[in-house]
Amino acid sequence: MPRYALTLEYDGTGFVGWQRQAVGVSVQQVLEAAASHLAGGAPVVSITAGRTDAGVHASGQVASLDLDRDIAGARLRDALNFHMKPHAVAVLRAALAPDGWNPRFSAIGRAYRYRIINRAARPALEAGRAWHVRDRLDVTAMGEAARLLLGLHDFTSFRATACQAKSPVRTLDRLDVGRLGEEVLIEADARSFLHHQVRNIVGTLKLVGEGAWPAARVATALAARDRAAAGPTAPAEGLMLVEVRYPDDLFSR
Amino acid sequence: MPRYALTLEYDGTGFVGWQRQAVGVSVQQVLEAAASHLAGGAPVVSITAGRTDAGVHASGQVASLDLDRDIAGARLRDALNFHMKPHAVAVLRAALAPDGWNPRFSAIGRAYRYRIINRAARPALEAGRAWHVRDRLDVTAMGEAARLLLGLHDFTSFRATACQAKSPVRTLDRLDVGRLGEEVLIEADARSFLHHQVRNIVGTLKLVGEGAWPAARVATALAARDRAAAGPTAPAEGLMLVEVRYPDDLFSR
Repeated sequence: MPRYALTLEYDGTGFVGWQRQAVGVSVQQVLEAAASHLAGGAPVVSITAGRTDAGVHASGQVASLDLDRDIAGARLRDALNFHMKPHAVAVLRAALAPDGWNPRFSAIGRAYRYRIINRAARPALEAGRAWHVRDRLDVTAMGEAARLLLGLHDFTSFRATACQAKSPVRTLDRLDVGRLGEEVLIEADARSFLHHQVRNIVGTLKLVGEGAWPAARVATALAARDRAAAGPTAPAEGLMLVEVRYPDDLFSR
Repeated sequence: MPRYALTLEYDGTGFVGWQRQAVGVSVQQVLEAAASHLAGGAPVVSITAGRTDAGVHASGQVASLDLDRDIAGARLRDALNFHMKPHAVAVLRAALAPDGWNPRFSAIGRAYRYRIINRAARPALEAGRAWHVRDRLDVTAMGEAARLLLGLHDFTSFRATACQAKSPVRTLDRLDVGRLGEEVLIEADARSFLHHQVRNIVGTLKLVGEGAWPAARVATALAARDRAAAGPTAPAEGLMLVEVRYPDDLFSR
């Protein structure tokens, strides 16, 4: 059965996350229901590169669809977008996938961005899209702490206790902290991430940014291999899955 | 009675516009109701720098509040933001205004930004925040056309037929068109604008961008002094009031 690769964007606000749940609307369910229209009502299965949590957004999520028909990428994209209305999810690109391609296992990199609105006034324009932190954050100290997490580590302190990954070891390739006016942006790159890893890192860096923790305490928290040693989980609404990378460009063939 | 100056941001999606209407929630109504809480329930009057239409957003709207009490700017900001919840409007800054200051008549400049999402897929993340135009726009041609509108002109062709301004003459100080990936941004600066002026300009530039009009036809449309000679009104949702400028910084005293 031909497999198609899709890039999607969605506003996670109204979704229970990527994955189907007993109650609530998931991105997977909206996508698979739309695809089923193109398969004469037969069920269609989708696999994703990363199952984002409830409230987490994506500007570059990647997923597969196995469809028993040949259809041009642009037509597949338009038909899915038509059937997914009015849900806040859209297919940006679609193409026949390379042989043996799996959105999860073929991925060689994932990039997340976390946004903090760092000012006194609560956000009106970016409500639901950023974490509101009133007190001025020290971005230099946060950047210093971030550098202590780069590279290969046992990230037990920064993964959800319910995380199902076999190994807590990951390599963090990039963790940048920057300020753009009233926004603090945290960008993270890795081959793959543990459950809540980015949000737990952000919740910890925020403690450094507000002066509650010295930057060096992040290294101590990491070495403890104990979730209780690190900071709290930052809210889902600030997190965006920006990109999933593969060895070859999926949409240029 | 002391007059306070406020900078506000709002998501125009759920509002009938700035001004009170018989039906629907307006930004003015939400702000004045919150201010009334601080005045022991007495009515409070607000004047704005520019009455944005339904669906138009603001990141830097300015308004006045006349309040019969002395209150520090930061406290006024926080109290208003508390009482305006959960509406998508927030006060960013508040301060006692200079003597004789009027948000509308003291303003010496206004800046608007119009966003177009220019790609095949409808926007999911920016739904309600941008105009979706599927076909690739020629930004160079749009910029060429934009330059024909710069300076002092009779903008009758580009103002709403219902516009109540006494004179259709305005000076357009800046009208930039640029592309940022899949977004086309149009930025306009003037001392003041006519009703629908930016949206009518954008609707016309879009005709140039898609090749339906040669750039030079914009000069013909302008010279006609006839609303029917220009293009259609671009949707409200792409428009953002970015800044209102005054001779002195209102919030630095």
